[in-house]
Amino acid sequence: MANILLGKDVADQMLVKLIERVVHLRERGVEPTLAIVRVGERSGDVYYERGAQKRAEKIGVRVIVHALPHDVDQDILKQEIEQINDDDSVHGCLLFRPLPAYLDEAEICDTLCAKKDVDGISSASMAGVFTGTGEGFAPCTAEATLAILKHNQIPIKGARAAVIGRSLVIGKPVAMMLLAEHATVTICHTRTVDLPAVTRESDLIIACAGKAEMIRGDMVAPGQTIIDVGVNETEDGKFVGDVAFEEVEPLVANITPVPRGVGSVTATVLMQHVIEAAEQTLEL
Amino acid sequence: MANILLGKDVADQMLVKLIERVVHLRERGVEPTLAIVRVGERSGDVYYERGAQKRAEKIGVRVIVHALPHDVDQDILKQEIEQINDDDSVHGCLLFRPLPAYLDEAEICDTLCAKKDVDGISSASMAGVFTGTGEGFAPCTAEATLAILKHNQIPIKGARAAVIGRSLVIGKPVAMMLLAEHATVTICHTRTVDLPAVTRESDLIIACAGKAEMIRGDMVAPGQTIIDVGVNETEDGKFVGDVAFEEVEPLVANITPVPRGVGSVTATVLMQHVIEAAEQTLEL
Repeated sequence: MANILLGKDVADQMLVKLIERVVHLRERGVEPTLAIVRVGERSGDVYYERGAQKRAEKIGVRVIVHALPHDVDQDILKQEIEQINDDDSVHGCLLFRPLPAYLDEAEICDTLCAKKDVDGISSASMAGVFTGTGEGFAPCTAEATLAILKHNQIPIKGARAAVIGRSLVIGKPVAMMLLAEHATVTICHTRTVDLPAVTRESDLIIACAGKAEMIRGDMVAPGQTIIDVGVNETEDGKFVGDVAFEEVEPLVANITPVPRGVGSVTATVLMQHVIEAAEQTLEL
Repeated sequence: MANILLGKDVADQMLVKLIERVVHLRERGVEPTLAIVRVGERSGDVYYERGAQKRAEKIGVRVIVHALPHDVDQDILKQEIEQINDDDSVHGCLLFRPLPAYLDEAEICDTLCAKKDVDGISSASMAGVFTGTGEGFAPCTAEATLAILKHNQIPIKGARAAVIGRSLVIGKPVAMMLLAEHATVTICHTRTVDLPAVTRESDLIIACAGKAEMIRGDMVAPGQTIIDVGVNETEDGKFVGDVAFEEVEPLVANITPVPRGVGSVTATVLMQHVIEAAEQTLEL
């Protein structure tokens, strides 16, 4: 029987501190504000947006939603981002991705200035995560993963960590963040020849391949901590992670569930970034 | 007895193609040109500079050396880089690092525009290596490592690669480049708990920790390929790699020597980048 690492426990502890910081900001005349830019009405985006709004309300962060049509022009979207860059009353911007294929996503992402890039989508933020210089912000999901490990006092330094997946949204940044915390990190992917051999010898497994229940019982070992970042919709409309929870849970030491795991921390990390960005405007 | 992978063989093969490309550029009125910016007279820098000049001459690349005093002002150095950015007759810039500690190296590196950043020192190039979008250029030593593997047809796809070292100059970029070639990459460092366990189970070992002869015979296994990126000066003034060559060479399948290994390819990769940068100006 594993210890179930609930995202809520982590988020709740963060919440208390964030509320204090918002009080302090408001005393100094700053209302921390997040702009959400959404293209179209994709259900996953709308769902996350509502969750973020609820979380923001609880903490005292103002949210402005820029809902754009699903066929928005590249230049219009760029102008929208540029206006957010120029607006001193807005401290952070979340842009839902992937953008529709006809748009040049890289150009749009790089339009957002690093200091408002609270979900780490611009090249400047990427470079910051890669170099460890701290420019911009890390992607929220990657940081949520680290937050869960730290909250539960799971050792990272010296641990062997297997990161399954190499996306820019989660796999690569979480690998760099674990490395910065002195883990020995192995990045695995679809071309990895003997994945079970890698996962079994690891202390931490970060499952972020986006493949439903791919981590099975024969790929894990006693004492391990499993962080499941996957969110995959099944044919019958349920959501499951990248880990076959029923099989794996009895075998390991710690595991996050899906839902109620990493996803429950991400929106709170987003709020933390907005608050940090707002605080930085005071320091200037 | 291992197969000794000589850098010269790789560089010579590259040379032939590069000379052809330079001929083509000159026919179109472009003289590929590299600016070398050196602060002070550090012997390692001067040594590399001479090697690069010789290599450039052979290939037909023009080199302009900007030798600045060891106590140069931050703003003067920045202006020097900005002039290089603005000068259409210069296609690439190599800046020797580390800069003296009183200078803000990160600011200087980010002054250089990505399209002339032929040694991958700017944030834009770092982001390019991290994201795989190909903006800017990869650090030459990291690319030289890949060039040696490819020239010798050593399989990278699906291979387990242990990268020993996590610097921005070599460890992290070479890890990202191996990952892009579909290796399963483990990044190791001083905090790695059981390094021999990691290295022994790898197909490729990239030694880039900057620690003389740290990879010993008991850390390797038959069939492996060892790329030694280290250059460490011993007390008696000799240069040795990160690998204890005498111990390791009889045990593995392929190994690069130091000197005459990776270092012999780096300057040629630099020239290749200058030529690429020059070709890109034609495409604009």
